[in-house]
Amino acid sequence: MTRRDKPISLGEFDIIAAYFRPLTGGRGGALDLLDDAGILTPPAGTQLVVTTDALVAGRHFLAGTAPEGLAHKALGMNLSDLAAMGAEPAAYTLAFVAPKPLSEAWLGAFTAGLADMQAEHDVFLLGGDTVSTAGPMTLSVTALGWVPAGKALRRSGARAGDDLYISGTVGDAALGLLIARDGRKLAGEAGDAFLKERYEQPRPRTRLGPRLIGVASACIDVSDGLAADVGHIAETSHLAAEVRIQDLPLSDAARVALDGDPRLLSTLVTGGDDYELAFTAPPGAADAVRTAARAAGVPVTRIGVMTEGDGVRAIGPGGAPLDLGTGGFRHF
Amino acid sequence: MTRRDKPISLGEFDIIAAYFRPLTGGRGGALDLLDDAGILTPPAGTQLVVTTDALVAGRHFLAGTAPEGLAHKALGMNLSDLAAMGAEPAAYTLAFVAPKPLSEAWLGAFTAGLADMQAEHDVFLLGGDTVSTAGPMTLSVTALGWVPAGKALRRSGARAGDDLYISGTVGDAALGLLIARDGRKLAGEAGDAFLKERYEQPRPRTRLGPRLIGVASACIDVSDGLAADVGHIAETSHLAAEVRIQDLPLSDAARVALDGDPRLLSTLVTGGDDYELAFTAPPGAADAVRTAARAAGVPVTRIGVMTEGDGVRAIGPGGAPLDLGTGGFRHF
Repeated sequence: MTRRDKPISLGEFDIIAAYFRPLTGGRGGALDLLDDAGILTPPAGTQLVVTTDALVAGRHFLAGTAPEGLAHKALGMNLSDLAAMGAEPAAYTLAFVAPKPLSEAWLGAFTAGLADMQAEHDVFLLGGDTVSTAGPMTLSVTALGWVPAGKALRRSGARAGDDLYISGTVGDAALGLLIARDGRKLAGEAGDAFLKERYEQPRPRTRLGPRLIGVASACIDVSDGLAADVGHIAETSHLAAEVRIQDLPLSDAARVALDGDPRLLSTLVTGGDDYELAFTAPPGAADAVRTAARAAGVPVTRIGVMTEGDGVRAIGPGGAPLDLGTGGFRHF
Repeated sequence: MTRRDKPISLGEFDIIAAYFRPLTGGRGGALDLLDDAGILTPPAGTQLVVTTDALVAGRHFLAGTAPEGLAHKALGMNLSDLAAMGAEPAAYTLAFVAPKPLSEAWLGAFTAGLADMQAEHDVFLLGGDTVSTAGPMTLSVTALGWVPAGKALRRSGARAGDDLYISGTVGDAALGLLIARDGRKLAGEAGDAFLKERYEQPRPRTRLGPRLIGVASACIDVSDGLAADVGHIAETSHLAAEVRIQDLPLSDAARVALDGDPRLLSTLVTGGDDYELAFTAPPGAADAVRTAARAAGVPVTRIGVMTEGDGVRAIGPGGAPLDLGTGGFRHF
């Protein structure tokens, strides 16, 4: 007899036991989620890196988002923040604030999504809280990682003359949002499915970030949009950034979409949620950047340069500046 | 010209800059909340202790709760979890999920409450997230502390014959809830104000917890109620607990309330939110318990004993068992 798809009548402790406890992977520090807190042992010579991000239904994800994808996003955006600091991910906590009723099928799919991410990024559930709400589902994840002491990557370390790099491809998630939310058709059936997945299932660059330690001079993950996030590097480093638009790495699907509607260029550059790493490195580190990228199995592309001044300038094919508008999603 | 009490039109970044950044206390690891994550340096020979608890408006706190008290509660319940493990608190992150509009007066009072707690418990804001919601305010705090490696207090370490102790007084918060929520009058004006404050402004025992390392055999903080939380020690230690009701330490106000209505005894023993520490220690450690309590400046009372068996038995004045009902608040 199956209990699947029945609205849930489980208590808080039952939900923890049936769905969340398996996500500890039996790791000792999680204490089977039976104690007041979890325990992590710092590797020798490291500092702890901590990030907290919350996702609110209707605001950060669409109603009806598949639970697997939601799990990928909630954990992925936090692991991406660790990667941006060069930290090796270790564990996470989850404040699971959910309206009733929840079906067991939903809970099963959600925790399966978390399990996928855990396996891919070698993290486990260390603790958390499970409570009900009269409002929209709200998922707060705190991700914990370790970085060699004193070596964390920062947004602020870029120097004039440094090259600017991006991992992966630019703008897929922004196009995926247009497809998922607005029903736009941009790149054919397979292309649209690819772009939608890039929006719904971010792949944080946890293998690349730690390999950029000692190589990159500044680093950030692209969550607010390439223009906004490169702007954060520029601002905190007291520099300007020049981004060569013709050098931006695009996926095949994004290329098809852009060929069909050149106005999407602005979306590609200002849209968020790619969770790629944007980083700077001195020209002499170009080989080290390539080595790190190869070791991580992540493509990396040089897309511009840091200069004296301020702001982000997009440079068009002829060398002329392009106006792409201001970017970055603000929550209030 | 004052902007106080104006509904807020500040953006996310403005709120962070004006209200949350000062809570970093300029501590380096918070990176002024300008980076993707915060950094903490582990003291030599320690393990990290991590706890996450969420508070939802209308469920965990009453609508119209004073913002200072809400700040005390959100941070206090998490610091209490650290204390229960014997960890020295270090820092916290906050996922601040709030409906619009917020007045600057509200934000000022809320962050002042956090600042009070920070000063009292020597912690600082390491990072977090500030987002708006269409639903009730939801505050998720992750608290981080350090414990000597391998020495964390657990719920499960009690042995038969160990004495059972409680810090402070029992049941004040449960009576305070009756006063705050139901308008009950229980202990006179001053007494009721005291009890209400005990409910609204928990005082986690962060000075006592670390001093119980090497002294207590098991420890928990009383959040679900004395009976339920002592039950957690008993269950995870595979033992029974006997609690001598006449030995329970009561505040003067709780004594007045109980004299006025003896049926409140059940409320005292099963009500939650006291955030005292319940712990066990072998009889030979009685002097060490007293020394730890004196050093922490926290009264500690022996209230019972752990025995073979299971469950929690309340023992009345004549030695006969009392039925106090099952206790503990469950969220689902």
